[in-house]
Amino acid sequence: MIARRGVCLVLAAPSGAGKSSLSRAMLEAEPGLALSVSATTRPPRPGEQEGVHYFFKSPEEFAAMEAAGGFLETAEYLGRRYGTPRAPVEAALAAGRDVLFDIDCQGHALLRAALPGDVVGVFLLPPSMAELERRLRARGQDSESEIARRLAVGRAEIARAGEFDHVVVNAVFEETVATLRAILAAARTATARLTGLPAALAALG
Amino acid sequence: MIARRGVCLVLAAPSGAGKSSLSRAMLEAEPGLALSVSATTRPPRPGEQEGVHYFFKSPEEFAAMEAAGGFLETAEYLGRRYGTPRAPVEAALAAGRDVLFDIDCQGHALLRAALPGDVVGVFLLPPSMAELERRLRARGQDSESEIARRLAVGRAEIARAGEFDHVVVNAVFEETVATLRAILAAARTATARLTGLPAALAALG
Repeated sequence: MIARRGVCLVLAAPSGAGKSSLSRAMLEAEPGLALSVSATTRPPRPGEQEGVHYFFKSPEEFAAMEAAGGFLETAEYLGRRYGTPRAPVEAALAAGRDVLFDIDCQGHALLRAALPGDVVGVFLLPPSMAELERRLRARGQDSESEIARRLAVGRAEIARAGEFDHVVVNAVFEETVATLRAILAAARTATARLTGLPAALAALG
Repeated sequence: MIARRGVCLVLAAPSGAGKSSLSRAMLEAEPGLALSVSATTRPPRPGEQEGVHYFFKSPEEFAAMEAAGGFLETAEYLGRRYGTPRAPVEAALAAGRDVLFDIDCQGHALLRAALPGDVVGVFLLPPSMAELERRLRARGQDSESEIARRLAVGRAEIARAGEFDHVVVNAVFEETVATLRAILAAARTATARLTGLPAALAALG
């Protein structure tokens, strides 16, 4: 085994494309992969645990962390701040552990700029917009206006699919998991990530 | 399925690292992958078939084909010419079919220059030079001086491993096949290869 940096595996998708289920399946299938936990200024919801679902911060704490360069990327949504803490990600990558990010296109673009060479971005497409709408309705958790909003946001995200390293149509769940695992396996052997290659070649010389 | 260009999958390795067995296993496992057949000016050996093992050419035919830009890369070995015919590879790539190349580091460098963006290069390392030497002896087909020559050429090839997109240690055969298949699967979803992405996104819009 050649020593290597970890992979930043980013999954992005329009709401309803199956990203959450795919993320869970990837974390179960890949013991070497851990989910990046975001920080947020929004209060915890019932059942949410500090350090598991989010790192919960006051607006002041968040601002201080941001000023100190403590975030790889930040975003604002409905007046709340969200951010990816830098330290745990950099520690994981340096130790050759892989990190999964469930973020949007803007987060992907910022993360890619913050960690050049580390990010492998995958955009998940639905088979069709009709199927995306069907899946959103099947969840039964959104109002008609919320579904319309999610579809509009989804269209805007889909328009940015070309910014990602890979584009995968999520038609058959198990096939998509296999493809995502292949993308991760391939990224693990990418020469640019193999920090131990000079030593490995010297040992063979 | 999004329309895409085919992948030029290049396997390179020092002699004895297991490249031929891995190439055969990949061709069996991947129906969408075909081996690139080289042209050569050396005469056929018993059992070798035109268009299967090589395209056999006279020196004059080879030179004419080369002058017409008919090769993606050429090499000379023991006074004989070898080359990768351009037309079948370009036809395969345009049709989204993947092509496997069993070539050396110099061929890889020339192919990469001839087909920018199409090549995915994998260099296979042996677990150790002692294991490489053991495998060469176990084949029982080479003299001591030929083994020494192969090891020296192998060392020179290994020094160029960093030119490849991926480096894979061939320790456990089945695991290496799985990794090579993952590299191919990942390459098939690479955004830069998805010629049909604009149409696919427009269809979702």
